[in-house]
Amino acid sequence: MAADFQGWLLGLQSRMETVLARILPAAEIMPQRLHAAMRYAALGGGKRVRPLLVFAAGEVAGAHAERLEIAAAAVELIHAYSLVHDDLPCMDDDVLRRGKPTVHVEFDEATALLAGDSLQSLAFQLLAHYPLAQDAHKQLEMVTLLAVAAGSRGMAGGQAIDLDSVGRALTLPELELMHIHKTGALIRAAVMLGALCGELPEPEMAKLDRFAKCVGLAFQVVDDVLDAEASTATLGKTAGKDAAQNKPTYVSVLGVTEAKALADSLRQDALDALAGFGQAAQRLRDLADFIVLRPF
Amino acid sequence: MAADFQGWLLGLQSRMETVLARILPAAEIMPQRLHAAMRYAALGGGKRVRPLLVFAAGEVAGAHAERLEIAAAAVELIHAYSLVHDDLPCMDDDVLRRGKPTVHVEFDEATALLAGDSLQSLAFQLLAHYPLAQDAHKQLEMVTLLAVAAGSRGMAGGQAIDLDSVGRALTLPELELMHIHKTGALIRAAVMLGALCGELPEPEMAKLDRFAKCVGLAFQVVDDVLDAEASTATLGKTAGKDAAQNKPTYVSVLGVTEAKALADSLRQDALDALAGFGQAAQRLRDLADFIVLRPF
Repeated sequence: MAADFQGWLLGLQSRMETVLARILPAAEIMPQRLHAAMRYAALGGGKRVRPLLVFAAGEVAGAHAERLEIAAAAVELIHAYSLVHDDLPCMDDDVLRRGKPTVHVEFDEATALLAGDSLQSLAFQLLAHYPLAQDAHKQLEMVTLLAVAAGSRGMAGGQAIDLDSVGRALTLPELELMHIHKTGALIRAAVMLGALCGELPEPEMAKLDRFAKCVGLAFQVVDDVLDAEASTATLGKTAGKDAAQNKPTYVSVLGVTEAKALADSLRQDALDALAGFGQAAQRLRDLADFIVLRPF
Repeated sequence: MAADFQGWLLGLQSRMETVLARILPAAEIMPQRLHAAMRYAALGGGKRVRPLLVFAAGEVAGAHAERLEIAAAAVELIHAYSLVHDDLPCMDDDVLRRGKPTVHVEFDEATALLAGDSLQSLAFQLLAHYPLAQDAHKQLEMVTLLAVAAGSRGMAGGQAIDLDSVGRALTLPELELMHIHKTGALIRAAVMLGALCGELPEPEMAKLDRFAKCVGLAFQVVDDVLDAEASTATLGKTAGKDAAQNKPTYVSVLGVTEAKALADSLRQDALDALAGFGQAAQRLRDLADFIVLRPF
């Protein structure tokens, strides 16, 4: 990991907080309660893994930071909306997120539902409204890419597969398919959107795509291990819920040791995909380490 | 109303059913249950008022029908998603829609939530993916327009204002503000998107905008009258719910007679906005009549 990685990370996390605070409607604007809930959901923390990936991929493609912060905000708003809806009683029914009460607990269910809905709309508004690419056609492709990643063949589809899998024993390929949708699609969109803010030849885009797929899966494997091993205090959300809800996870399918080995092997695949990029991809490599080597 | 209006209406309603059936992911594609719920929510009926407005406005602007059907589908998917979420137990808790069980009754709450989320994503995917305007910048503006209309400063915001208003006595201006968001924003987006699929000078766009605002409000006034007067069987959804839930409506604020008079005056304003458009706007005029003169 590069020596200045920690500084870069903290700088961008702080920058994203500023960008999101600026972009989200003020809590004084009507409807105030809805806007307060949207801000509560999207501000004040989180590791901002997806924005970090947008910036790191943008660095490979020589993209302007002003474009990257908009693309990063759009991806993060989709992520934030998905957390609000996932936490609802009819889904995971969770009361704690990032160490704070979830949105429906802090506000109410109806407001949480509408806040999630509105965060999704705002993500597409950002991606279409600000100039993000020299070529407007390319920017339309970026909107399409995020919409596909968020929708029924991406993140929301992954959630649906997850719902269907509760209480069932999944095979490893089935589990992988679920997570390629549920977490992988948006991680991949983050990397692709960052790169599309700049210029990169097709073969290099394909390598980034491979990197993103490996990192996306590794991210989920690590999440499953953390859920099984960490305490609620460390995690900032309710720990051990997967096992309690009888959800299939990498830990339930492979066991902890094998799951850790899989995460490390996916990390190696991700790094291999970046061979030949040289120093420009150092942030992406650091992020792969950051994501996989979170304190087990 | 033009003699062939009924034929035009039925033709387009049938065309929209075909377009939506083609555009929505097949129920055989994984995750099947989610895709089945999305199709259940968006297919099989409804008056398709917003798509009709897209086509009628497109006619004024000389737009190609292939573009209009995509823009119309995008607007209708946003409308369909909003109905699914509005019907959820934490919102209106309704069990009947278009004479059929609502999505969460037919499927389950989690699937309804995800189906609504995915319909919204799909709307933006359509609007960005298909070629809808000569100029890609203009198409990006169309995406922005729909995103704003759907989000916290548009439709979802109107729902939030609605929630806050239950049990409170609203003034007429407050009620109007709520409906300009809740119903008006998407009706306006339908008219604007239809026109943007073709070419229309700015002053004409402004006239269409005024037309759309009047029709949007008239639409809601008529809805309130119907809810107060019609039976559940005629309406295809639970009637009399507004009064039962102690919701402020145009009928509760103005009484039935005054509300009907307001609807008619808004219809006249809408028609006035189209003065000077000639025969090209006849479908829009017919639609204003169709919307306001629904059987009281």
